[in-house]
Amino acid sequence: MVKMLSGAELYEQYKLLMQRIADVRYASAVLQWDQETYMPVKGAEGRARQLATLTEMAHNLYTDGALENILTEIIDKTDIDDVSLANVQLTLDELNRQKKLNSTFVRTLSETVSKAFNAWIDARKKNDFTLFQASLAELVTLKITEADLYGYDAHPYDALLYEFEKSMTVQKLDTLFDVMTEPLKEIIAACTNKNTDDSFLHQYYPKDKQWEWGMFLVKELGFDLAAGRQDISEHPFTTNFNAQDVRITTRIDERDFANMTWSCIHETGHALYEQGLPPDAYGLPAGEFASLSIHESQSRLWENCVGRSKIFWQHYLPVLKKYFPSQLEQVDIPTFYQGINRVQPSFIRTEADELTYHFHVKIRYEIEKALISKSLSVKDLPVAWNDLYKKHLGVIVPDDNKGCLQDVHWSHGSFGYFPTYSLGSFYAAQFWAQAKTDIPGLEAQITGGDTKQLLLWLREKIHRHGKLYDSEALCKSVTGKGLDTTLFINYAKEKYL
Amino acid sequence: MVKMLSGAELYEQYKLLMQRIADVRYASAVLQWDQETYMPVKGAEGRARQLATLTEMAHNLYTDGALENILTEIIDKTDIDDVSLANVQLTLDELNRQKKLNSTFVRTLSETVSKAFNAWIDARKKNDFTLFQASLAELVTLKITEADLYGYDAHPYDALLYEFEKSMTVQKLDTLFDVMTEPLKEIIAACTNKNTDDSFLHQYYPKDKQWEWGMFLVKELGFDLAAGRQDISEHPFTTNFNAQDVRITTRIDERDFANMTWSCIHETGHALYEQGLPPDAYGLPAGEFASLSIHESQSRLWENCVGRSKIFWQHYLPVLKKYFPSQLEQVDIPTFYQGINRVQPSFIRTEADELTYHFHVKIRYEIEKALISKSLSVKDLPVAWNDLYKKHLGVIVPDDNKGCLQDVHWSHGSFGYFPTYSLGSFYAAQFWAQAKTDIPGLEAQITGGDTKQLLLWLREKIHRHGKLYDSEALCKSVTGKGLDTTLFINYAKEKYL
Repeated sequence: MVKMLSGAELYEQYKLLMQRIADVRYASAVLQWDQETYMPVKGAEGRARQLATLTEMAHNLYTDGALENILTEIIDKTDIDDVSLANVQLTLDELNRQKKLNSTFVRTLSETVSKAFNAWIDARKKNDFTLFQASLAELVTLKITEADLYGYDAHPYDALLYEFEKSMTVQKLDTLFDVMTEPLKEIIAACTNKNTDDSFLHQYYPKDKQWEWGMFLVKELGFDLAAGRQDISEHPFTTNFNAQDVRITTRIDERDFANMTWSCIHETGHALYEQGLPPDAYGLPAGEFASLSIHESQSRLWENCVGRSKIFWQHYLPVLKKYFPSQLEQVDIPTFYQGINRVQPSFIRTEADELTYHFHVKIRYEIEKALISKSLSVKDLPVAWNDLYKKHLGVIVPDDNKGCLQDVHWSHGSFGYFPTYSLGSFYAAQFWAQAKTDIPGLEAQITGGDTKQLLLWLREKIHRHGKLYDSEALCKSVTGKGLDTTLFINYAKEKYL
Repeated sequence: MVKMLSGAELYEQYKLLMQRIADVRYASAVLQWDQETYMPVKGAEGRARQLATLTEMAHNLYTDGALENILTEIIDKTDIDDVSLANVQLTLDELNRQKKLNSTFVRTLSETVSKAFNAWIDARKKNDFTLFQASLAELVTLKITEADLYGYDAHPYDALLYEFEKSMTVQKLDTLFDVMTEPLKEIIAACTNKNTDDSFLHQYYPKDKQWEWGMFLVKELGFDLAAGRQDISEHPFTTNFNAQDVRITTRIDERDFANMTWSCIHETGHALYEQGLPPDAYGLPAGEFASLSIHESQSRLWENCVGRSKIFWQHYLPVLKKYFPSQLEQVDIPTFYQGINRVQPSFIRTEADELTYHFHVKIRYEIEKALISKSLSVKDLPVAWNDLYKKHLGVIVPDDNKGCLQDVHWSHGSFGYFPTYSLGSFYAAQFWAQAKTDIPGLEAQITGGDTKQLLLWLREKIHRHGKLYDSEALCKSVTGKGLDTTLFINYAKEKYL
């Protein structure tokens, strides 16, 4: 006689299996982190096959039937609570999606990503897109296949967007960018070429001192260095291996103080989210971030709403001057604030002001759509990129490193990621407005160098819920309504006009 | 109708499976490397479970029947060559051994090792063995179980020795240490307390400069930094993720110049071996090191026969003086040579001279035998350790860090490893004697700072063969006879008397 398992017993089995899958996925994340930070160049080939094997094994563990059997049995049980049921339902959704890919495809995609990443590193070194072109073309072909395998209603790019932002579609994004373009252009026009002096940012800031300052800053913002670390990589990123081991990276330009400082703040925003996820939900949806746009809302909130505010630097500029006395001696708070918020169309997304930023995102979005719908071929990407930069930002891209080689994302096969930067910024403005309402004296606290209450508020309102709310539901639970981009426009007008 | 596969076809299947197992094992190695170099403290718990899962998965892939089916079919085929057959035979031996462990045991052992490693780190920080005691006791119990599961004829420790040195037994090691004790003691007695001045080693050598010097040195010896890297860890080690990604670590003591320098040379010796293994045999025995004693023969040959020789420093002392001009201004080659070869019983194995060194090894060997045969309990380990140091080396151990907490090995569950240090040193002396015969002008080359011919000779005679010869067969093929410890005694007499 086969003993019927209770919901609670099945749920335990489910948890064990999910934790095991998480172990393999996070092991991959360690290998990827090492690949981007410390791996010697010749290690690339072996690493590519190791990552491919782990990725394939995680996929197989997810889709080999054992998980599905547990899930389909558990879903009708009455003795499990709502949170458990939500975990199960989210896992079932993801399983049904993953089943559309076979393990050979997953392995090939992983191998191609590794190859593309290494080609991108090489192309960056030589400032030459053609060195990246062939592997990127391979990757785009695979992503088109992936979109076909996943299936879609209106646009193949919708299938890829889903990975980063479940409810997002080309139709919605087209509307969003359309709605935002004019108001943004107006504000940008009103505050560009204001003769803002940001030359102090481009003095010589020695590497070691910048590193010390950056480490100080990430600690100040609440990043727990006993549960994480910061390193250097070609492109800054955040990854985590569990809520107690969150890694951020940065890069240092000795002639551009802004580069490292705001990447430190941005990645710390991501890291604080990861460190705030519930550790006891390891491996379960409840232990994972809600969506990429919510993730980016955290990084952009800290980077911009906090990290480019006057109140923040009222406290931190005097501290910063201790690190760089000669460079900043003559710089007062108004000059500093104006300088770090100078609105000026430019080449590099990660260094852009928070207004022109969204045109960088829009350009990538347009290119991704075109690549995935085959209306643009990879060999024509640099020309398309440069044309779009001329059209939307009015700048002439001087070379590939300042152009279409600047971002790591495509080499990772991450098509559909970029739009979440804009979404994240808009959510950030909405959360920031709410935080100022919810937290009495928040601005005074920040003026005093204290961001603890803000972090606690984010932990309470956003971090601790993991994936149990999707972006819109979370936004509603925090602010009483779904995404409202007028709050970003209001924020921008108030700050810049 | 089932198609019969040819030997060549089966061999391809075998290779694919072995490479996949290697991927998982090397992924574990990356996680372990990170654990010992960069992982934040709170990451330990998550890392432990990730390592346990990977270890269990690798074990399951090895033992789940698929590999066995291929191996038993292939073994009778006539269309595979000798090297392939040797790979198959070695894999079958290992499989039969691995089958004696079940996956629950493998997982528990891995989890306990992680716990013990973290406890050891903590105990080192607080210089307090009792913080390590409980996890070490757990680990010893598991190793005793492991010995029982593997089985043995004469002594449970034999079953553990097998992991590191297949043909080694307690009986052979007892004899070996017995044979070596008196000759070693005589030479030591003759050259201890010679009023050798090594005070120059204990001046202030700044961390940064030592690091620069160490990096220079490892490169000079032929370590390919495009296929490897060096980092800092609590205890120096070498690991690899394939022949093109070999990691070494070191540690720096600003008041002990010797500490880092000879650990750099020692680990480089290991690394050169790993970088010299045939990359196209990835995952197969032919792509792995022969044995731990052969591995240690490489590290000890570079560390001692080369790295503590007068000819080596005739070239490198002037170079070294450029890094540390004030510290070494007054030190000439004879003084330097005498200083770095000062024979003096001491506490720390890794810093010991090459004669008293073997008593450090003997002490660990005696303790391991006693722990595994249950004649010593873990709680009595410090007392036993200190007694043996008094007995064999005549020194009074002042604290746990200078005593039984000094080595990382037990926290890794590596019982049976230590004897390979002595075996390796003896093989090293034999290989060194042979190299001087085989390579015309070797000593003149080294005097000129050129160790390339020596490396090529090691590559040709030892590295490229992987595991296709065992220690004794390899020694015979290189030197015409098996291990002959009189060559070590001759080397020691010539150098020290």
